Formats: sequence, C-alpha cells, structure tokens
Amino acid sequence: MDAIGRIEKALSAALAVAEGAGRPPRLAEAMRYAVFPRGARVRPRLCLAVAMACGEDVPELTDAAAAAIELLHCASLVHDDLPCFDDAATRRGKPALHVAFGEPLAVLAGDALIVLAFQALARAGAAEPARLVTLLGIIGDAVGMPFGIAAGQAWECEPRVDLGAYQRAKTGSLFAAACMAGAAAAGMPAAPWRAVGEKLGEAYQVADDLRDAAADEAEAGKTTGRDAVLGRPSAALTLGIPAAVRHLEDLVGDAAAAVPDCPGRGALETLILVEARRLVPKSLALTAA
Amino acid sequence: MDAIGRIEKALSAALAVAEGAGRPPRLAEAMRYAVFPRGARVRPRLCLAVAMACGEDVPELTDAAAAAIELLHCASLVHDDLPCFDDAATRRGKPALHVAFGEPLAVLAGDALIVLAFQALARAGAAEPARLVTLLGIIGDAVGMPFGIAAGQAWECEPRVDLGAYQRAKTGSLFAAACMAGAAAAGMPAAPWRAVGEKLGEAYQVADDLRDAAADEAEAGKTTGRDAVLGRPSAALTLGIPAAVRHLEDLVGDAAAAVPDCPGRGALETLILVEARRLVPKSLALTAA
Repeated sequence: MDAIGRIEKALSAALAVAEGAGRPPRLAEAMRYAVFPRGARVRPRLCLAVAMACGEDVPELTDAAAAAIELLHCASLVHDDLPCFDDAATRRGKPALHVAFGEPLAVLAGDALIVLAFQALARAGAAEPARLVTLLGIIGDAVGMPFGIAAGQAWECEPRVDLGAYQRAKTGSLFAAACMAGAAAAGMPAAPWRAVGEKLGEAYQVADDLRDAAADEAEAGKTTGRDAVLGRPSAALTLGIPAAVRHLEDLVGDAAAAVPDCPGRGALETLILVEARRLVPKSLALTAA
Repeated sequence: MDAIGRIEKALSAALAVAEGAGRPPRLAEAMRYAVFPRGARVRPRLCLAVAMACGEDVPELTDAAAAAIELLHCASLVHDDLPCFDDAATRRGKPALHVAFGEPLAVLAGDALIVLAFQALARAGAAEPARLVTLLGIIGDAVGMPFGIAAGQAWECEPRVDLGAYQRAKTGSLFAAACMAGAAAAGMPAAPWRAVGEKLGEAYQVADDLRDAAADEAEAGKTTGRDAVLGRPSAALTLGIPAAVRHLEDLVGDAAAAVPDCPGRGALETLILVEARRLVPKSLALTAA
C-alpha cells in the first residue's frame, strides 16, 4: 500500500472507534468532516517517509503516529477557523466546520480529535510500550505548551509577539514531531531529526504566507488575504514575494542537507526536494521562473 | 502528605512544564487560572482513595493519573463555560476563564490542558509502561468519543437526546475513570471499579442538578438556574427536589456496596458515605432532614 493509502486507512480506523455504537451522531459526523476528504497530508507523509528511511519494522506504529499527528493538525485547523480566531468561511474547499455544524460542535470536534490522537497512539503502542512513551513525549510536546501548536496560536493573543517562537510553535513543532515520530516509531533516535522537520516547517509556513498573499481561493482551498486583513506576521508581506520564494527554496535545501545518516537517506533527500515544488503556488512558480 | 496535598503538588508540577521558558505568558496564566484555586477535586481524590485501597506501590503514577483526570475536568469546564455553550459568567466563585482572558485564550487553554493531561501521564508512566498503556486507555475513553466527556457535551447538540447516554458520558465517564485509574495505577484490575465510579458519577450529577435548581450562587460558586433557562435535562426538575435527594442517597449506597474486594475496602466504603454528605446543598440537607 502506498503512503497515502496507509494514512487514510489509519485515520479511518481511528475515526471508526469514535463512531462506535452509542455515539452522539452529529459530533461523529463533524469529526469525519474535519478529517476527510483529505488535504495534502504533508505531516503524516513526512512521518512515513522518515520511518521508511530509518528502516521501519513496526509499520502499524508508524501509521498510528502519522494518524495521530494528522488528527491533531485537523483539530488545530477546526479551532483556528472559529469565529473568535480566523473566522474562516471555508477550509479545504468546503464550508469551515463551524459554518457547517455550528460553533459548539466545532469546539467539541477539535477536543475529541485531540483525545482521539492519543487514544489511537496508545492502542497501537501497547505492543511497543518503550517506543510509545517516546512518541507520546514527542507528539504531546508538539501540540501543547510551552512550544506546541496551542502555544503558537496563543502568541496571536499576546500584546508583544516573539515572531520566531510564534512560527516555530505554530507550524515548526508539528513538522519536527512528524520527522522525530517517524524515527521513533522505527526504534531509532529521534533528536537528530528535529532540524529536518523545523526547516521544513519553516518552509511550509513561508509557502502558506505566499498562498495567503498571492494564490487565488480556488487553488488555496480556503479564504485568502487574511494575514493582511488581520495584521498577522507574514514572510510574504515582510520580505516581498520574490525574496520569500527564494527564502523558501533555501529552507528546503537546508532541510534536505540536515537528513541524518540512515539507510534511506538519498531517497529521502530527493523526496524532500520534489515535494517542495508542490508547496509554491502555481502562479508564483511561474513568476519566479 | 494528605490527598489534597499530593493532588495540588502534582497539578502544580504538570503546570510548571507548561510554564517553561519561552511560553506565551497569557496562555500559561490562563491555564493556571483554570486549575487554581482548587474546586472540590472530587475526581482526583477518588482516584487516590481507590489506589490506596488497592495498596498503591507507585504513588507518583497515581498522582499523575489523578492530576491528568483533574486537568481534563478543568479543560471541560473552561470549554463548557464558553459563550457558544453555557455562556457562564462565573466559575468557582470568580469570573469564568473566557470572561477574564477572552474567548480565544479560553479555547486554547482547554486544548492545552487536554494535551497537558496526556503529557503528565506519559512522563510519570515511563517507568511503568504496561500500567501507562492501561491508564491511557481508561482516561482517553473517559474524555473522548463515543462515551467520554466530549461525547456527553455533544448530546446537548443533538435534536434527540439519549438522556442516559448523555449523563453517563458527561459526568459518569470521568468518575468511572477516576476509580479505574486508581486501581490501574496500583497495578490492580481496573474493570471491577467501573460500577463504583458510574454510581458516584450519577450521584454527583443529581447533586449538581440540585445545586443548579436550589442552591444560591455563593454556595455553588457559579451561575445557578441555568438548567431551567437552557432547557437542559435535570433530575431535580424531572423528579422534584425531595425525590431527587432520595435518589442521590440510593446511588451513593449502591456505589459503596459495589466496592470490590481489596485491602482497604472498609475504609473506602466509609469515605464514600462521608464524602457524599458534602454533595447535597446545605439548604436541601436541612429541607430533607
């Protein structure tokens, strides 16, 4: 099965538990709506790619780690889109969850997806408890305080923003976790993978800023132009678009160069460079060519 | 150290991690605001009491499980109080978190507290990975879908409410988890403790309905009369107050009778009966006398 097939199967299996008999039906529907149909699945694909490069030996643990990371990402999108944050009307080309299901179910779907991530991880990790402990630490740190996604989002609520901390936490943390979890699921040391994920996360943040500034809504699959409207930090607005594109390319090169020694190192470096081309909005790739 | 001392110390230790250098300060403050000063700490005290009755041998694991349960309870209160749910002005005798810190930080504090619960549990469970796996399952199920707190809250969003499922999930699940986690932290089978927790949870829900219907706000420490205003299910409103008080007493008796055979069984039965007296609002205890 290819990487996307594995990821979709693992996500569906996790959601199937939440959809067990006796569930409140609308919350179960809202959770599935938040996770399917899929976005790019960038983080879980990264997790699988690293695990395979490390010679994975317990694929069901990799799958659960990847699914947990994507569930947490989906949860953060649902909560970020709420009226009290971005008040986004659309997400992945369809109405945002709070628009489709109402605000209460959007709050609860985010909460239940966070919990589901840990439930899925715990279930798959029962046979490999030592690796489970490492994975829980990596993934918990990437979403909680003081450096995870929730911390990153909270920097938007501070009177003075530490821009580096904001971006590292809001985007970099989960990319770092995706790489580190891939290694940990394969029983390899996780720490050397942090730099790869952080560089890719930074690149992805720049690409996201570029999409918000320059892509049309059909290509982005969500409301664009929000950074300027909301006065949020944006590499595209600060550096200008051509310099931001060059910065993105440098970051991707740094990420590929940071890949630690491992059985699949060459293939992973190539994958990173190929995938990175998909990050830049089509209109900009032409502009910068 | 007495039970409350252990619980407060474990909660403070968990929060200290979230308050590490580099944190967004207001989210860290909001999280502490959600957890301190303490409420009754009913669930973590129950967890410790069961662990001690089972002859606990790894108290730091009990403490982490109890803290995780309380952090999840506090998270659920913060999210329940949001304008899109109860829109509560006060909680534990002070402004509700979203009133004091704003709605964005209330959403994020709840999210970060959920994650912190799993972080704290994973850290303490590293030395006892088999027990950790059991605890993660018990605690995850108690807050997620299809039967945990989030599911319980979601029944409020359904056109047709399964009242039993609603109350079991919204309140019973975390009481059951508190008892089961106490046993699991002590290395004993958890399943026989479910019934004790479920009965106590049901008793606590009836007591909460009574407080909402009949206690004044100073005694309850929060806005009262919300069940009638919001049309929520309430034993006090359905049965009438005297019958609801009798029902509560029956449930507490059932809980004490359900305590499984264990080294501290007698002491635990007594503790349950004594603690239960604190559940009934003072004015009603007089009325029913």
